[in-house]
Amino acid sequence: MSKSDLALLDQQYATIRDLSHAESMLSWDQEVMMPPGGAEARATSLAALAGALHEKQTAKDHVKLVRKLDKAKAELPARGRRSVEIAVEEVRKATSLPPDMASELALAKSRALQGWKSARADNNFKAFAKHLEHLLELSREVARLEAPKRDVYDALLDHYEPGASMAELGPLLDRLEELTVPLVRRMAKVRPKPSPKPLAGKYPVDGQVRFVRQVVEAMGIDFDRARLDTSTHPFCGGDGPGDVRLTGRWNERDLRQGLYGAIHEAGHGLYEQGRSPKVARSPLGGAVSMAIHESQSRLWENMIGRSKPFWRHFLPKAKALFPEALKASNLESVWRSANAIAPTMIRVEADELTYNLHIILRTGIEQELLDGSLKVKDLPKRWNARMQEMLGITPKTDSDGCLQDIHWAMGAFGYFPTYSIGNLYAAQFMEAARVALPDLDAQVAKGQLLPLREWLGSQIHRHDRLYTAGQLVQRVTGRPLSVDPFADYIESKVVSLS
Amino acid sequence: MSKSDLALLDQQYATIRDLSHAESMLSWDQEVMMPPGGAEARATSLAALAGALHEKQTAKDHVKLVRKLDKAKAELPARGRRSVEIAVEEVRKATSLPPDMASELALAKSRALQGWKSARADNNFKAFAKHLEHLLELSREVARLEAPKRDVYDALLDHYEPGASMAELGPLLDRLEELTVPLVRRMAKVRPKPSPKPLAGKYPVDGQVRFVRQVVEAMGIDFDRARLDTSTHPFCGGDGPGDVRLTGRWNERDLRQGLYGAIHEAGHGLYEQGRSPKVARSPLGGAVSMAIHESQSRLWENMIGRSKPFWRHFLPKAKALFPEALKASNLESVWRSANAIAPTMIRVEADELTYNLHIILRTGIEQELLDGSLKVKDLPKRWNARMQEMLGITPKTDSDGCLQDIHWAMGAFGYFPTYSIGNLYAAQFMEAARVALPDLDAQVAKGQLLPLREWLGSQIHRHDRLYTAGQLVQRVTGRPLSVDPFADYIESKVVSLS
Repeated sequence: MSKSDLALLDQQYATIRDLSHAESMLSWDQEVMMPPGGAEARATSLAALAGALHEKQTAKDHVKLVRKLDKAKAELPARGRRSVEIAVEEVRKATSLPPDMASELALAKSRALQGWKSARADNNFKAFAKHLEHLLELSREVARLEAPKRDVYDALLDHYEPGASMAELGPLLDRLEELTVPLVRRMAKVRPKPSPKPLAGKYPVDGQVRFVRQVVEAMGIDFDRARLDTSTHPFCGGDGPGDVRLTGRWNERDLRQGLYGAIHEAGHGLYEQGRSPKVARSPLGGAVSMAIHESQSRLWENMIGRSKPFWRHFLPKAKALFPEALKASNLESVWRSANAIAPTMIRVEADELTYNLHIILRTGIEQELLDGSLKVKDLPKRWNARMQEMLGITPKTDSDGCLQDIHWAMGAFGYFPTYSIGNLYAAQFMEAARVALPDLDAQVAKGQLLPLREWLGSQIHRHDRLYTAGQLVQRVTGRPLSVDPFADYIESKVVSLS
Repeated sequence: MSKSDLALLDQQYATIRDLSHAESMLSWDQEVMMPPGGAEARATSLAALAGALHEKQTAKDHVKLVRKLDKAKAELPARGRRSVEIAVEEVRKATSLPPDMASELALAKSRALQGWKSARADNNFKAFAKHLEHLLELSREVARLEAPKRDVYDALLDHYEPGASMAELGPLLDRLEELTVPLVRRMAKVRPKPSPKPLAGKYPVDGQVRFVRQVVEAMGIDFDRARLDTSTHPFCGGDGPGDVRLTGRWNERDLRQGLYGAIHEAGHGLYEQGRSPKVARSPLGGAVSMAIHESQSRLWENMIGRSKPFWRHFLPKAKALFPEALKASNLESVWRSANAIAPTMIRVEADELTYNLHIILRTGIEQELLDGSLKVKDLPKRWNARMQEMLGITPKTDSDGCLQDIHWAMGAFGYFPTYSIGNLYAAQFMEAARVALPDLDAQVAKGQLLPLREWLGSQIHRHDRLYTAGQLVQRVTGRPLSVDPFADYIESKVVSLS
C-alpha cells in the first residue's frame, strides 16, 4: 500500500467514470433528442456500455488493487480511506453479478421504457405488465446476488441511498404520514380555498422559458456548463460538474408546472455544478445519495420558490412577461396560488404537503410487489384503493394512476422513498441555512439567491462523496436526520395559508 | 469453420457496433448540443470509448475466430466471405496498434477540435499549429504501424476509401483539374455573369427550416428515424438506419447555404436510412466508402437540387414562404442563381465546378504535410499561394483560409480526395439512373423524388458493405469509375449557363 496505489485507483476510476459519462449522456439523449426509430439501437448500445463498464469494475487488476488498499485502509489519510470505502462497495456489488447481467439489465430497462411510453399513451396497463414482471424478477435476482443476507428492498434502496435501510427510514415515513393526514384534512376545510389562480392562467411557452431562465440563472445555474431542453418528464441529466442537462415541460394553462419543475431540476443542477472538478473522475466524485440530491431540489422548489420573498422579487418580472395573465394579481394572491394545497392524481404536480403521501403510497406498493404479496396484475386495483384511502381520490385511468411515473419502467425500485427523505433533509438544511444567513429572506426578496447557493455549495456540493449522508447531515446541522424541521416548516405553512 | 462460427462473428460484431453507436452519438452531441463546459469530460469519455472498442476488436477470442474463418473463407457463401474479409481487415488494423493508442488518438482529436474552434474564432493559426503537429505525428505513426509497406498517405486514405491508392485516384484528380481550369476561365468571361440573386436575398431562418423540411421529406427522409438541428458546420451524424442526425446552418441573407447544405446532408441521410436494419450490427453493416457516401450527397445537392426540374416544382413553394425575396424572380433567374459559378474562399459555399479545385488543393497540401515537405508553420503561406494559383483569389484571414475546415482538426487526413471522387461516382450513377428512369426529369418537375430514392436504395443503399466501391460501380453502371460522366455533366452545365 502506498500513495501511488491510491493514484492508480484514481486512474482506474477515471476510465470507469468516462464510460459512465457516455451512459449518462446517451440516456439523456434517449429521453430528449432521439427519434423513435433509434430506440432499438440505443437499447443495445446502452447494454453494451453497461457490459463494458462492468468489465472495468470487475477487471482483475482493479479488484486486486481495491482489496490491497482495503487491507491497508487504516494507514490511509481520511480522503483516501473514503475513496477506498466507496471502491470496495462498488467492487463488491459489481463482482457479485455475472458478466452478462449488467447488459441484460440495461437492455431490459431500455425495452421496458419503450413499453411504458406506449402503454401510458394508450392507457394499456396490460401491455406494460410483462415488462414490469421481468424487471421485478431481475431486480430480486440482483438484490439476492449483491446482498444475500439483506432484505430485498433494502438491497435495492442501497443503490440510491447507500447504507440506508427501511428499519431506519420506515419510522420516519410513518411519522411523516401521521403528521400529514390531519394537515390535509385541515386544509380541506379552509374557506375560501387557496385558489390556483392567477398562476393557473394563460402562459405562452416562449415567455415561460424566458422567465424560467431568469430564475435559474439568478439561482446560479451557469449555462456555459448546462442546457435547458424540453421533455415529457422533467429531469436533471448529463454529467456534472461540467455538463448538466436540465429539462422542463410547459403547460400553457398553468405557469406552476413549468416553473416549479424547472426550479426543482435547477436545484439538482446546482448540486451537480457545485461538485469539485478535481475529484469528478475519482471514487469520491458524485452525489452523496439520492435523498441528499433531492434535498437540494426540494429546498429550492418549495422553501425558496414558493416563498413570499421569492415572489416579492420575481412577480414584477413575471408581470412584465405575462401582463395579461397577472394583471389583477398581487403578491398575496400569487403566493397563495403557488401554495394551493389539494389532493391531485399526479405526483409531479402535487403540492408540498400531499406530495409525501404519493411517495408513501409508492414505497408501500413497491415493497409489496418485490416481496410478492402484491401480484403485478393486481397493481392498478391496489393503486386506486390506496389513492382513495390516502388522498380521497381515484384516478380515472391507469395512465393517471400506476402508469404515471417513469421509475418502475427504469427498474428503479427503492428510489421513491428518497423523495420524502429528501424533503426531510431539505427542511433540516434550511434551518441551518437560516442560522448561517440571518438575512436570507431579505436577500431572496431582492433576488439575491447566490448567498444561499454559496452556502449550500460550501456545506454540501463541493464535498462530493467525501461524507456519507449521515455524516453530512450531522456536520451541517449538528444532529442526525429528524422529521421535526419538516414538521415545523409544513405546519407553519399550513397555518399561514389557513 | 461452420455456419455457427459466422453467427458468432455477427454476435461479437454486435457489441463492436453498439460501442460505435455510442461514439457516433456522443460525437454528434459534442458538435450540436454540448455546452462548452463539457468539452474536457467529453474528450476523456470518447477516449475511454475508443479504448473499450479497441479492446473488443483485439480481444483474443475475436481475433482467433476471425483468423479461423479467414482460413476457411473459400468454403463460405458470398455474403459470409465478404463479412470475413471486412473483419480480417479491421482486425489487422486494430491489432497493429498498441492498446493505448486508440484512446490517445481519440483524446488528441477531441482536444485539437477544441483548439481549432477557438483558433478559428480568433484567427490564430499559431494556437492550432501545435495540435496539427501532434495529430500529423500520430497519424504517421498509425500509418506506419497499420501498413508498414504502404505509402503513409495511402494507408490513411484507406480509412475512408478502403483499398484505394493515390496511384489510382491521383490521375483521376489530375484529369479533373485539367478539365476544370478552362471551364472556370470560360465562366469568368460569361456576360452577364450568372447572378447570385434572387437566392442571395433576405430569407428568415424560420421559413428556411420549413422549406428545407419540405424538400428533404420529398426526397424521402423519414423523421421518425432522423432529426434536423443547427450546427456551425453542417453534417450528417448519428447511426443509420434508425437514428440519423442531420444538421444545417442558416444564412439570413442567402437561401443557398442552408438549402444546399441540407439537401447535401439529406443525401447522406438517405444512404444511412436506406441501409438494411438486418445487417446493421454485423460486419456487413455500414457504408461502402466515403466517396460512395459523398456520391449520394452530391447527386442530390447538385444534379437534382440545382436542376431546372427541381425548381419547377419547388419555386412556387418557396414563393409561398418567401414572397418578398422571390417576388421578381422566375424559374430561369432562380435556376441561374442556384448555379452562380465564381471562385470563393470557402469550400462548403463553392459552386460545383470550382469545388473540386478546393479539394485538389487540400489533397496536395495534406500529402505535403504528411511527407514532411511542408512544415506546419508554413501552411498558411502555402495555402494562400495555392488559392491564388488555382482560383485567383487570396483569403484575407486564416479563418477563411487554412483554418476553415474541421477535417484536419479531427485528424482526418486522407479524407478530402473522397469528396471529388464522390462527384465522379455521382455523375456516373446519375447516368445509369437516367437510363433506368427515363422520366426522371418529368418526375422531379412534379416533386416526385421517391422513384430516384428507390432506385438509389435498391442499387446502392440496401447492400451496405456487401460490395467494394469498385464492384459496386461496375455492378450499377457496367464499367469502372471514370471521369467522363462528370466531364460531360459539368461541361453541359457550363454551356447551358453561358
